[in-house]
Amino acid sequence: MTDRETLDFDDPMQRPRFTGLATFFRLPYREDFEADPPRIGVCGVPYDGGVTNRPGPRHGPREVRNQSSLMRRVNQATGVNPFQATTVADIGDAWIRKPYELVGAHQEIEDYFQRVKAAGIRALTCGGDHSVTLPILRALAAGGPPLGMIHIDAHVDTGDNYLGSRFHHGAPFKIAVDEGLLDPKKVVQIGIRGALYQRDSSKFSFESGMRVMMIEEVEERGWRACIDEACEIVGEMPIYVSFDIDCLDPAYAPGTGTPEAGGLTMREAQGMIRRLKGLDIRGADMVEVSPPFDVGGITALNGATVMYELLCVMAE
Amino acid sequence: MTDRETLDFDDPMQRPRFTGLATFFRLPYREDFEADPPRIGVCGVPYDGGVTNRPGPRHGPREVRNQSSLMRRVNQATGVNPFQATTVADIGDAWIRKPYELVGAHQEIEDYFQRVKAAGIRALTCGGDHSVTLPILRALAAGGPPLGMIHIDAHVDTGDNYLGSRFHHGAPFKIAVDEGLLDPKKVVQIGIRGALYQRDSSKFSFESGMRVMMIEEVEERGWRACIDEACEIVGEMPIYVSFDIDCLDPAYAPGTGTPEAGGLTMREAQGMIRRLKGLDIRGADMVEVSPPFDVGGITALNGATVMYELLCVMAE
Amino acid sequence: MTDRETLDFDDPMQRPRFTGLATFFRLPYREDFEADPPRIGVCGVPYDGGVTNRPGPRHGPREVRNQSSLMRRVNQATGVNPFQATTVADIGDAWIRKPYELVGAHQEIEDYFQRVKAAGIRALTCGGDHSVTLPILRALAAGGPPLGMIHIDAHVDTGDNYLGSRFHHGAPFKIAVDEGLLDPKKVVQIGIRGALYQRDSSKFSFESGMRVMMIEEVEERGWRACIDEACEIVGEMPIYVSFDIDCLDPAYAPGTGTPEAGGLTMREAQGMIRRLKGLDIRGADMVEVSPPFDVGGITALNGATVMYELLCVMAE
Amino acid sequence: MTDRETLDFDDPMQRPRFTGLATFFRLPYREDFEADPPRIGVCGVPYDGGVTNRPGPRHGPREVRNQSSLMRRVNQATGVNPFQATTVADIGDAWIRKPYELVGAHQEIEDYFQRVKAAGIRALTCGGDHSVTLPILRALAAGGPPLGMIHIDAHVDTGDNYLGSRFHHGAPFKIAVDEGLLDPKKVVQIGIRGALYQRDSSKFSFESGMRVMMIEEVEERGWRACIDEACEIVGEMPIYVSFDIDCLDPAYAPGTGTPEAGGLTMREAQGMIRRLKGLDIRGADMVEVSPPFDVGGITALNGATVMYELLCVMAE
Amino acid sequence: MTDRETLDFDDPMQRPRFTGLATFFRLPYREDFEADPPRIGVCGVPYDGGVTNRPGPRHGPREVRNQSSLMRRVNQATGVNPFQATTVADIGDAWIRKPYELVGAHQEIEDYFQRVKAAGIRALTCGGDHSVTLPILRALAAGGPPLGMIHIDAHVDTGDNYLGSRFHHGAPFKIAVDEGLLDPKKVVQIGIRGALYQRDSSKFSFESGMRVMMIEEVEERGWRACIDEACEIVGEMPIYVSFDIDCLDPAYAPGTGTPEAGGLTMREAQGMIRRLKGLDIRGADMVEVSPPFDVGGITALNGATVMYELLCVMAE
Amino acid sequence: MTDRETLDFDDPMQRPRFTGLATFFRLPYREDFEADPPRIGVCGVPYDGGVTNRPGPRHGPREVRNQSSLMRRVNQATGVNPFQATTVADIGDAWIRKPYELVGAHQEIEDYFQRVKAAGIRALTCGGDHSVTLPILRALAAGGPPLGMIHIDAHVDTGDNYLGSRFHHGAPFKIAVDEGLLDPKKVVQIGIRGALYQRDSSKFSFESGMRVMMIEEVEERGWRACIDEACEIVGEMPIYVSFDIDCLDPAYAPGTGTPEAGGLTMREAQGMIRRLKGLDIRGADMVEVSPPFDVGGITALNGATVMYELLCVMAE
Repeated sequence: MTDRETLDFDDPMQRPRFTGLATFFRLPYREDFEADPPRIGVCGVPYDGGVTNRPGPRHGPREVRNQSSLMRRVNQATGVNPFQATTVADIGDAWIRKPYELVGAHQEIEDYFQRVKAAGIRALTCGGDHSVTLPILRALAAGGPPLGMIHIDAHVDTGDNYLGSRFHHGAPFKIAVDEGLLDPKKVVQIGIRGALYQRDSSKFSFESGMRVMMIEEVEERGWRACIDEACEIVGEMPIYVSFDIDCLDPAYAPGTGTPEAGGLTMREAQGMIRRLKGLDIRGADMVEVSPPFDVGGITALNGATVMYELLCVMAE
Repeated sequence: MTDRETLDFDDPMQRPRFTGLATFFRLPYREDFEADPPRIGVCGVPYDGGVTNRPGPRHGPREVRNQSSLMRRVNQATGVNPFQATTVADIGDAWIRKPYELVGAHQEIEDYFQRVKAAGIRALTCGGDHSVTLPILRALAAGGPPLGMIHIDAHVDTGDNYLGSRFHHGAPFKIAVDEGLLDPKKVVQIGIRGALYQRDSSKFSFESGMRVMMIEEVEERGWRACIDEACEIVGEMPIYVSFDIDCLDPAYAPGTGTPEAGGLTMREAQGMIRRLKGLDIRGADMVEVSPPFDVGGITALNGATVMYELLCVMAE
Repeated sequence: MTDRETLDFDDPMQRPRFTGLATFFRLPYREDFEADPPRIGVCGVPYDGGVTNRPGPRHGPREVRNQSSLMRRVNQATGVNPFQATTVADIGDAWIRKPYELVGAHQEIEDYFQRVKAAGIRALTCGGDHSVTLPILRALAAGGPPLGMIHIDAHVDTGDNYLGSRFHHGAPFKIAVDEGLLDPKKVVQIGIRGALYQRDSSKFSFESGMRVMMIEEVEERGWRACIDEACEIVGEMPIYVSFDIDCLDPAYAPGTGTPEAGGLTMREAQGMIRRLKGLDIRGADMVEVSPPFDVGGITALNGATVMYELLCVMAE
Repeated sequence: MTDRETLDFDDPMQRPRFTGLATFFRLPYREDFEADPPRIGVCGVPYDGGVTNRPGPRHGPREVRNQSSLMRRVNQATGVNPFQATTVADIGDAWIRKPYELVGAHQEIEDYFQRVKAAGIRALTCGGDHSVTLPILRALAAGGPPLGMIHIDAHVDTGDNYLGSRFHHGAPFKIAVDEGLLDPKKVVQIGIRGALYQRDSSKFSFESGMRVMMIEEVEERGWRACIDEACEIVGEMPIYVSFDIDCLDPAYAPGTGTPEAGGLTMREAQGMIRRLKGLDIRGADMVEVSPPFDVGGITALNGATVMYELLCVMAE
Repeated sequence: MTDRETLDFDDPMQRPRFTGLATFFRLPYREDFEADPPRIGVCGVPYDGGVTNRPGPRHGPREVRNQSSLMRRVNQATGVNPFQATTVADIGDAWIRKPYELVGAHQEIEDYFQRVKAAGIRALTCGGDHSVTLPILRALAAGGPPLGMIHIDAHVDTGDNYLGSRFHHGAPFKIAVDEGLLDPKKVVQIGIRGALYQRDSSKFSFESGMRVMMIEEVEERGWRACIDEACEIVGEMPIYVSFDIDCLDPAYAPGTGTPEAGGLTMREAQGMIRRLKGLDIRGADMVEVSPPFDVGGITALNGATVMYELLCVMAE
Repeated sequence: MTDRETLDFDDPMQRPRFTGLATFFRLPYREDFEADPPRIGVCGVPYDGGVTNRPGPRHGPREVRNQSSLMRRVNQATGVNPFQATTVADIGDAWIRKPYELVGAHQEIEDYFQRVKAAGIRALTCGGDHSVTLPILRALAAGGPPLGMIHIDAHVDTGDNYLGSRFHHGAPFKIAVDEGLLDPKKVVQIGIRGALYQRDSSKFSFESGMRVMMIEEVEERGWRACIDEACEIVGEMPIYVSFDIDCLDPAYAPGTGTPEAGGLTMREAQGMIRRLKGLDIRGADMVEVSPPFDVGGITALNGATVMYELLCVMAE
């Protein structure tokens, strides 16, 4: 127990929010989480070796932590206080010792999340680029049946070889299915849009049985109908939730590597996440916040807000 | 009558909008407003001693004036030309002689607005942080019955002691009710969202009888139904309108001290303000534009637009 | 055929998008387009001598080209691959040799587009300020019947003399009607809003028979009904499509000279453009992106996306 | 006498500097300067129709006024209080009624400065682009012998036809010599650097007898020796001082249209201006501040500081 | 000893610098410093209630901590490794419980530094505005003889009443002399420049016997001669070092509340600080970094570098 | 010969600089350089897989090309017109087909430069991070004696293993010596500063016999003496010139990955490069411009200027 807790570090009624170190949500910081494991661990993966165009998400965890100082405790929309409902801590970063090689880096990330899992902690992760979800899933689904997934994103991320690699940020979910980590029939992809390199770039999603909801479907049916159907599809099975910040319209998330015009608003995103309440969420992430391309911190602020909403549904 | 008027300063058909000094809406500037009082006075309160986190609204009036050069005259949506419908002037700033102490600063602001009221001027004010609405209400409601209020904001601002003070920008309306300046049953708060420090942080609003419309209610019922109900609640009584720029989504208002994801769009905000036509508006404000945190002037531009729409409904 | 094509320049599966020169959509670049004319030529008009307030659109084509590197090939929403459906090239810029005089500059622009037309190329143009649409229409409609037009904009741009000139960026369409280039009864203006200098500033649009759809109408009827009616009005006649980026809300397009709060979202804009499929589009433009006022490149990104959507409907 | 003076507007000991309207140095504002002419009039020329590349200086006067709120009264380096030594006022802007044509715009500027001269006011001008110095010189030197000039700039600005015009911002001083407004043997150009379009681009300066001091000479001899020689050259004759902000290194002045690496520091610039004390300065300008390209207002701040130093040497 | 040390948190050869929390120089963080007091404690005072114009330094400590991740260990210019030469820790922030009142806030700061002093720690402080140096000096000089001071700044900060208060950021050193905390004859002020409100604004410095070195003196004599003389003046007496970031030229420190053109370069500043080696430094601060006005983090980076250089001379 | 040359693309007297595509210095673009090889080829290496902290230099070549539109032809300081003195072309980018693995990427870069060398072209390269200089040297020195080098940088870049790799951007020159590509006794490193991770981090430079000139030496002896000595050391042997933009002070180059306070000014850098005239320069580079961290394009502008000065000394 560090002294910050003694000082009631996380109570902004007593202590201004711009003071001290910026942990996620002003939580106590426990890099040695095995000693006193929280039920939910909020962590960062400051790695962006898998981007295909603009780099920067390696700086995401620090800036999202910084903006998360603006967050408070009790969710007015749902009544949940996640910090009261369960135990939560900032369990630090899955940092990479040898970042110059993609496959090895993914192994290091997997090792970290195996430690987290072994400690009985459910992880809420801040990326990093989207390639990091693959090693997280490897740790999470190891030795068990495939997971379902709610995947909110502008891109299906089930691509294949690209620039000489299978492991970039546009491909994690094809590999995850190939490796038996995900059950494609229990994967729902929401918010998909933009143009494709090739006509069949996203065929793996369709052919493997994933339910792909384009942004046009969200606009026509409304987010409520979409997320209701998604919840029905995954039902009560254990799932993972992966939120790529580029699912948001660039007006809401300019600071990301592959922005796509015409995306979700934050009200839609928040509404959909809140609807996940009651699902069996084994882990979740929010990825692709790229501070060097952000303007005024708005992408990091929205990223922190998304993590808070995810935390609320994981905590109940 | 200053020479600017002789030169037809405010007609952009004759004079480019980027020339000369930036008054609100290119209006004539009358700091000595008693000499020739307009019916409506547009003014600034460049004070931010009441913020709880990020400072900056003290620079709001100057930058909102600057962006208001982009405004024109006739409201296409409503047909109103406020500059023709009544007399309007920029009556300068309620600047603070002794800014280092919150309570005294509020007294100075109150004194200014008593002068304004004594001159028979209705004030449309640009903040400054939201704490400045309290002294405005003190001047406005002095010696009369409590006012009603349409309050559009992300926060209820009916908090209590915080960091050792009752008078910060999160508390003006509790004090206003306590002092008999507002009739809580005739107060409508619209756009409320975000998390709370404590579960009962906003209980004063509910217990005192204010009508609190969360952003989720706005999304579900639509802004028209919400503002219609609000108008019905206040009826024909004298009211004040307070518009905190953080009611807008941060995509529309990044330059503010306590941004909350998932807010109003400008189309919703404009629609709601236009609906206030015909109400007995005794004064109005637009607060919490913080230029140091703005990007590309968009928050100040939207703040100026909100003030223009408020001016239109006040002018009729 | 330049070497860039040999190197398969435009295939981002082989070559990272941030490498090499930024042509529109990574297309081959042919300033001498007569030699091997594509069916559709994407070009820039880096000219802003017609702005009435903030300058900058002269830098638009370069920055839109830069952001268009993020675009890909196949439109997921419509299934169109414009690069396969027809031949397309970046045909360079209609640059102005003598930029210090507005009327002569317009003549130079007209000359360029006469060359384009003579080569049998349909032009998709990136402005520049909106005054450049006038010389484009002069080249396009020369010696033929007047065109119809779908015009998406915050402003009607049918004004008259302003600051001593008829030819500024707020007036091209009045002149185009006067010169018989447009049939006003077949002109639809969508997204109009903001205030007017004078009550009758937009009377030419109404009196000449244009169909003006204010933003309030778009919000109330929905964009589908509006664009359906627009398509019905123009029918099968030859039309021009002019998209002023300031039709978008400033949250989506801060980098423009005369921003107006409360505009279209990108989802609405994309939806409307896609609906134009099947119309007889003789040319199109996207104008008024002003990089010096942009933040994080979002306006240029949305401008490039709009051009991609226009290209898709022109290519079919 | 306006009420701002009654309120002691310009005393920042009584009134915070961020309040009210931003006039130059918080001076009283007198657009109708003939009524009560000050000895020195500080004014703006918000015009940039003569730029050859990046636009924006039309916004210079407003932003320099804004940053000049940071200035105070007594020059610590020289002991001068210009506001006490003489009468000074902000006499507004020489705004252009018909900005779309370069030659006519210059005539409008000349007319304004003839009014200023007729009122017995010496003008300290904030540009606008450097082409505006030509009409100022026309007004100033009309009917008298040619003036001398201290010209601090990265460019000699004695070019000839460019993009079809003689009157752009790279040519005013050739024309001024041709018209007999300047005596080239009494013109000193300091800080010149950068590359030339053609080997003889600056030959007019050399052949006409101007003394050109390249930045390398300033570095080798030191700014004191250079400015001493310059003062000796002009002696006691009536002179004009023209300061192009791009004489500064881009680290000090990023917000300008044609930045050149390797320029003056502000300490050098301030030292040189202060040395002009005692010269017969008939007018002076500071030009080419381009706010859309500025970062953090530093160019405008340095521009305002340069104007303050010019004011000090003009006031004595 | 926290787990971060176990993980060798501060060795960037093992762990990338952008990972984890940003403490000053990646030091271990000990808010409860009494338990294991380091010889030198690096701390923040996130308070800006004393600014006279632009706010923001309350955010200084967090952003300086962030940029200090770029710092390494061994000073190449002097050979010092401060982290090896002594024990150093980040001892957190002197945060203010009741920030709305200046005098009480100063008392809270004094209390914190009394705790620090009682623990035998020498403090290296990151402001906050310059008013915070007063309570630091009160704690430091309590019960002892007055201190000497090396004060590097654009302003003498020995002003008097301003906007109704004696305690703002332009006055700490007059009060410190009045209270016997500083011996004015052993105070050297270096880098002073800019204009004054009144001719006698800085007379207290001169009349009390402080040695004031204007920036012009630094330029003429060179920084070496100046700092040599300063060191001679203070000799071997106990001193405090106060470094206001606005001593730097705005090109090096745009992010500060009262920038003054024509200041020190970082090479001059670093040279002068290194020369302080061997003096009896009892405490030091670097103040007035204002992140909301910073561009690209350069001011915070230079502020962190200044603190590193101060740490090196304190550590020997 | 492309059509751009027919149109006299590179003559800004005829064609505005902001039009068309941005090649380096508006040169003709020849990706297939073997067909018509210029004597000097200007190229980019858009790769940043070797950075140790902040990414972004992959975007350097495009943005340096963009800013280089501001460059002109004849160097006023030296009289050289490099475009007339020799043949020069923009020969495109050494882009990486498989960017996810550092060693392979270096091989691809080496292959490109072997093609360039085989075509008889001397390369002037724009990075990319500094690790790319290693494969350039491998291509350049292959099969010949070691080269000498003038290396202007904040860091010696002769480090060893770091984060699991020998090939990052802090180590190229140790490897180059180990591989016999450089003669360490003929290597001069200028501008070195900042702190070290470990006391012996730069020992390889000293022990191998490189001449290391710290920034303090540059300040004390002056840049002329330093560069004179450097030229003497390398004499008439074939050399390479490597210019890391972080040698500049962060005020001049904020947009770089590992900024170090207290660096060179552009005037010093330009003076030193010009002094290299007459040396036997076999190739040169300017690296580490990181656009995502740049402000206002100043780093890219200075990078383009450095490349222009290098081109001038290579062309003679």
